[in-house]
Amino acid sequence: MSERNSATLLISCPDRKGLVATIANFLMAYNANILHADQHQDSSENLFLMRVEWDLSGFTLPMENFAAAFQPIADENQMTWRVTLSSKKPRMALFVSKYEHCLVDLMHRWRIGELNCDIALVISNHEDCRRLVEFNGIPFHVVPVTRDNKAEMEARQWALLEEAQVDFIVLARYMQVLSPSFVERYPSRVINIHHSFLPAFDGAKPYHRAFARGVKLIGATSHYVTEVLDDGPIIEQEVTRISHRDDVEDLVQKGRDLEKVVLSRAVRWHIENRILAYANKTVIFD
Amino acid sequence: MSERNSATLLISCPDRKGLVATIANFLMAYNANILHADQHQDSSENLFLMRVEWDLSGFTLPMENFAAAFQPIADENQMTWRVTLSSKKPRMALFVSKYEHCLVDLMHRWRIGELNCDIALVISNHEDCRRLVEFNGIPFHVVPVTRDNKAEMEARQWALLEEAQVDFIVLARYMQVLSPSFVERYPSRVINIHHSFLPAFDGAKPYHRAFARGVKLIGATSHYVTEVLDDGPIIEQEVTRISHRDDVEDLVQKGRDLEKVVLSRAVRWHIENRILAYANKTVIFD
Amino acid sequence: MSERNSATLLISCPDRKGLVATIANFLMAYNANILHADQHQDSSENLFLMRVEWDLSGFTLPMENFAAAFQPIADENQMTWRVTLSSKKPRMALFVSKYEHCLVDLMHRWRIGELNCDIALVISNHEDCRRLVEFNGIPFHVVPVTRDNKAEMEARQWALLEEAQVDFIVLARYMQVLSPSFVERYPSRVINIHHSFLPAFDGAKPYHRAFARGVKLIGATSHYVTEVLDDGPIIEQEVTRISHRDDVEDLVQKGRDLEKVVLSRAVRWHIENRILAYANKTVIFD
Amino acid sequence: MSERNSATLLISCPDRKGLVATIANFLMAYNANILHADQHQDSSENLFLMRVEWDLSGFTLPMENFAAAFQPIADENQMTWRVTLSSKKPRMALFVSKYEHCLVDLMHRWRIGELNCDIALVISNHEDCRRLVEFNGIPFHVVPVTRDNKAEMEARQWALLEEAQVDFIVLARYMQVLSPSFVERYPSRVINIHHSFLPAFDGAKPYHRAFARGVKLIGATSHYVTEVLDDGPIIEQEVTRISHRDDVEDLVQKGRDLEKVVLSRAVRWHIENRILAYANKTVIFD
Repeated sequence: MSERNSATLLISCPDRKGLVATIANFLMAYNANILHADQHQDSSENLFLMRVEWDLSGFTLPMENFAAAFQPIADENQMTWRVTLSSKKPRMALFVSKYEHCLVDLMHRWRIGELNCDIALVISNHEDCRRLVEFNGIPFHVVPVTRDNKAEMEARQWALLEEAQVDFIVLARYMQVLSPSFVERYPSRVINIHHSFLPAFDGAKPYHRAFARGVKLIGATSHYVTEVLDDGPIIEQEVTRISHRDDVEDLVQKGRDLEKVVLSRAVRWHIENRILAYANKTVIFD
Repeated sequence: MSERNSATLLISCPDRKGLVATIANFLMAYNANILHADQHQDSSENLFLMRVEWDLSGFTLPMENFAAAFQPIADENQMTWRVTLSSKKPRMALFVSKYEHCLVDLMHRWRIGELNCDIALVISNHEDCRRLVEFNGIPFHVVPVTRDNKAEMEARQWALLEEAQVDFIVLARYMQVLSPSFVERYPSRVINIHHSFLPAFDGAKPYHRAFARGVKLIGATSHYVTEVLDDGPIIEQEVTRISHRDDVEDLVQKGRDLEKVVLSRAVRWHIENRILAYANKTVIFD
Repeated sequence: MSERNSATLLISCPDRKGLVATIANFLMAYNANILHADQHQDSSENLFLMRVEWDLSGFTLPMENFAAAFQPIADENQMTWRVTLSSKKPRMALFVSKYEHCLVDLMHRWRIGELNCDIALVISNHEDCRRLVEFNGIPFHVVPVTRDNKAEMEARQWALLEEAQVDFIVLARYMQVLSPSFVERYPSRVINIHHSFLPAFDGAKPYHRAFARGVKLIGATSHYVTEVLDDGPIIEQEVTRISHRDDVEDLVQKGRDLEKVVLSRAVRWHIENRILAYANKTVIFD
Repeated sequence: MSERNSATLLISCPDRKGLVATIANFLMAYNANILHADQHQDSSENLFLMRVEWDLSGFTLPMENFAAAFQPIADENQMTWRVTLSSKKPRMALFVSKYEHCLVDLMHRWRIGELNCDIALVISNHEDCRRLVEFNGIPFHVVPVTRDNKAEMEARQWALLEEAQVDFIVLARYMQVLSPSFVERYPSRVINIHHSFLPAFDGAKPYHRAFARGVKLIGATSHYVTEVLDDGPIIEQEVTRISHRDDVEDLVQKGRDLEKVVLSRAVRWHIENRILAYANKTVIFD
C-alpha cells in the first residue's frame, strides 16, 4: 500500500445513468490499471459519489495534463472532483494544548509509517509538549491564545500554517474554539476529536456529564470542524463499556484510548483521500 | 442458577465502616451459605449499596421471620432494603403495540427458561400480536389507548394489572407515553426500551434523526421509566456500527437486534434483583 | 430494498485491466440503471470479483436472453458468473435438532420481511420443534438420523429437498454431521453456525472448552459447509465478553445471542447474493 | 485512586461458610475503612478467592505486624495470600525486540500516571529502541540473545533484573521464547502479549494464518507466561473486525491497536493487584 505510485480521484455529482462506465472508459483510454474503485449513491440527495485509485505505471496520460483531459467530462456531469498523487505527501499541522495522548499517538503512527504524510509543525497554546515534539524532529510553536487576543493569535497561526505549506489541520485535544473565519479558510480540512459520542454531550465537560447521566457506554467522535461547535460531519465514532464502578477519572482514562483510535482513523482516511463530506455527513470509501 | 433455593437481599444506606461485617455476621448467625456478595460505594453520594444472595438450605432463620430479625440492623444503619426468594417468581406484564420483535424475543427467552418469571399478561393497543401471544398460552388484552381516552384506558390497564398480580411492567416497543400517575404507581418497576443511544436522540423518530446527523454507530437503551420522557435511570446500552450505505430502513433493521438484546438483559437483571436505582443511575450487581 | 425489481450479477475471473469498464459498458448498452456495484481484487490470487445490481425497469435486454448476450464476454475473460432476480425468491430449508433459538429467530425475521426468501420446509431428527414450525405455516419433517442409518436417512432428506425445490440449506444448530456426498451436492449452499470463534474450539463442546481454557471472549461463526468439519469458508463471526463469574451455562446463554445474530446475517447475505466464496474464504459485498 | 494510602489483600483458599465474615471482622477489629471488596467462588474447583482494599489512615494494625496477626486466620483456612501497599510501587522490566508500539504505549501511560509503577529498565536483543527509552530516562540494556547463547544471555538478564530489584516482567512484543528455568523464576510475574485471539493461531505468524483462514475478526491476548508456549492463564483479550479488503499488512496495523490496549490493561491490573491466577485461568477483580 505504502510504496505504490498511484493517483486517486474523488468525485461527487448528480446521479444519472452511465457514470461508472464514463469514468472507467476515460481511465481505460489511457491504459489505467485500477487498484480500487468504490462508489455510493445517496438516493435522498440524488447524489453520486465515487473514489477510484489507479496505478500510474503504464498510465499514458501525464498527470499534469489530467485536469485538461478530465474537465470536459466533469463539466458535462456537473462534477465536483479532485485528484491526488501518492507521491505527494500531504502536510499536516497538529494543534494541541496540554494533553499529550493524541499527540504522542499520532507522532508514533507517523514515525512507523502508518500515516503517509509530513508533520509540518505543531502549534500549542502551552509549552508543555515541546520536548516530546522536538524529540521527533518536528517544529514546535507556542501561540498563547486567550479569550481576548484570539484574532491576533489566529493571524499568527495562519502565518505559520502558510509558511509551512500546510494542507490540513488536526486538533489533537486542542482546548480552544476556532473562530468562524479560521474555519472558513479550511473547509473539510480541520479534523477535531470530541470526547463524547456525538450528538450526546456536545460542548464542555462531556465525561462529567456522561458520569452524571449514568450512561453505560462512553464514546469519542472525530469530525470536520464547521462554524457550529461539535456539529460538523462525523468521520468516525467508537464507544467502550463503563460500569457504576467507574468514576469520572476512570472515564477520562478509558476515553483516552477511544480518542486516540478514533482520531487516528480519521487522520489516516483523510490522508488516503477516503472521505467525501456532503450534506453534513461523510462517505468513507473502503 | 435456575434450580437453587436462595434468598437475595438488596441494601442501600449511608456509607460507614463495618457494614460488610455487620451483614455478613447477621447472615452467619443463622448459618447462611453465601453464594454471591457484591457491594459498591458511591463516594460522591456517600452511599453504600450491596447485594447478597445465600442458599436457604441450612439457613436457620425462617424467611417469614426475616424482616423482624433484620429490621433493627436496618434501622441502626438507615437502610433501604428488600429481600426476594428465588422460589417466588416475579410476575411480568408486557405492553406492546404493533412491532413484535421484542415481544417474540422475550417470550422465547421465557419459554426456554432464560427468564425466571411468569408472564402474567400482554396488553396492547392493537390486535396484531394476539395470535403470537396466545400461541404461548399467555392472556392477551387489547386496551385501545388514544390521545383522548388515556385516563380511562389507564384505569382499565391498572385493573388488569392488579387482577393479574403483576410485579413489574416491560414496555416492549409500546408506542404510548404513560401518564405521570401511572409511572408513580410503579417506581423502578416499569422498564422501557428506547431505540437510540441516550441521551442522544431522545423522543420521537430516533433512527431518522441518527440518519440525518450522519452518526457512525446507532444504539439502544433500556431504562426505568420516570415522569420525564426517556430520562429515567439507564439500565443497559449497546451500539452497532453503520455506514453511509445504510438507509433509514437498514438502521431500523440493525436497531431491532440491539433492542432485543438490550431489553432482554434489563429484564433478566431486574428479575434476578441485580439492579439498584439511585440518583437517576443504576448499579448492576454481577 | 425489498420492493425493487432488480437483477444481481456475481462474477469472478482472473484479474486484468478493463474489467469494470467492460461490464459497465455491457450493462449501459441495454440502458441499465446500476443501483450498486462493488468489486474486489485479490492480488495474492490474481482474482477479480464483482457484484453489480441494477434496476430492471428500463433495462432493454429481456432477462431470458441475458445468458446468451453475456456469455461471449464471460468466455473472453474466463469468468465464473451467475445472475439472480429479486423477483424470484430463493427457497431455503432449515435443519434443526432440539435447540430452537436459531430456528425461532430465522422464522421471525422471515415473517417480518427481513429475509427475502421462502422457507420451503424444516427437517429435524426430533419432534420437538414441530408446533413452533407449523404455527408459522411451514412443513415440518422428522428424519431420525442415527449413526447407523445415515445413508438411508440422507436419501430421504434429498428426496424432500428436491420435491420442495430447495435452493440452499441452513443448519440452525443441527447436531448431525452431513456426509461428504451430501455436502458435494450443495457446494457453497449449506450454511452452518458453529458456536465458537473458529478456528478456536472447532468440533464438539466448544463452550465447555472455552470455559476450561479461561478465555475472556466467546464467539460464534457462520460458514459454508465443506467436507472438512468446521473448516469451510467463514461468512461471519462475532464475539461477546465473558468473565470469571460466568459458568458454562452462562456461556451457553450468552452464546445463543451470538449464534442468532451471526447465522441470520449469513443467511441474509446469501439470499441477497452478497457472498462469493473462493480459496476457502469469502468476499462479502456491501 | 492514585493518591490514596491503602493496602490490598489477595486470598485464595478452599471455599467454606463464613470466610467473608471472618476477613471483614479481622479488618474491622483494627478499624479498617474498606474501600473495595470483591470475592468469587469457583464451585467446580471449590475455591474461594477474594480481594479487599482498605484505607490505611486510621488502621490501627501497623503493616509490619500484619503477617503475624493474619497468619493464624490464614492457617485455619488454608489460605494462600499476599498483601501489597499502594505506597510501594512495583518495579517493572520491559523486554522488547524491534517493534516499538507496545513499548511507546506503556511508557506513555507510565509517564502520565496511568500505571502506578516504576519502570526499572528495558532489555532488548536489539539497539533499535534505545533512543526512545533513554528519552524517557529509563535504563536500556542490549542482551543479544540467539538460539545458541540463550543460557548465557538469560543469566545476564537475571543479573540485570536482580540488580534492578524487578518485581515483574512485561514482554512487549519480545520475539524470543524464554527458557523454562527463566519462567520458573517468575511465576505469574511475566506478562506476554500474543497477537492472536488465543487459543486460535498460537505460535508463529498469527496474522498470516488469520489471513489465510479468512477470519472476519482478529484478536490479541495478554497472558501470564508458563512453560508451554502461548498456553498460560489468559488475562485479557480483545478483537477487531476485518474484511476481505484487508491484506496481511492491514491486519498487522489493526492488530497493533489491539495489542497496545490489551497489554496495557493486563499490566495495569497486575500493578493494581486485581489478578488471581489459578487452574490456568485468571480472576480479574473489579
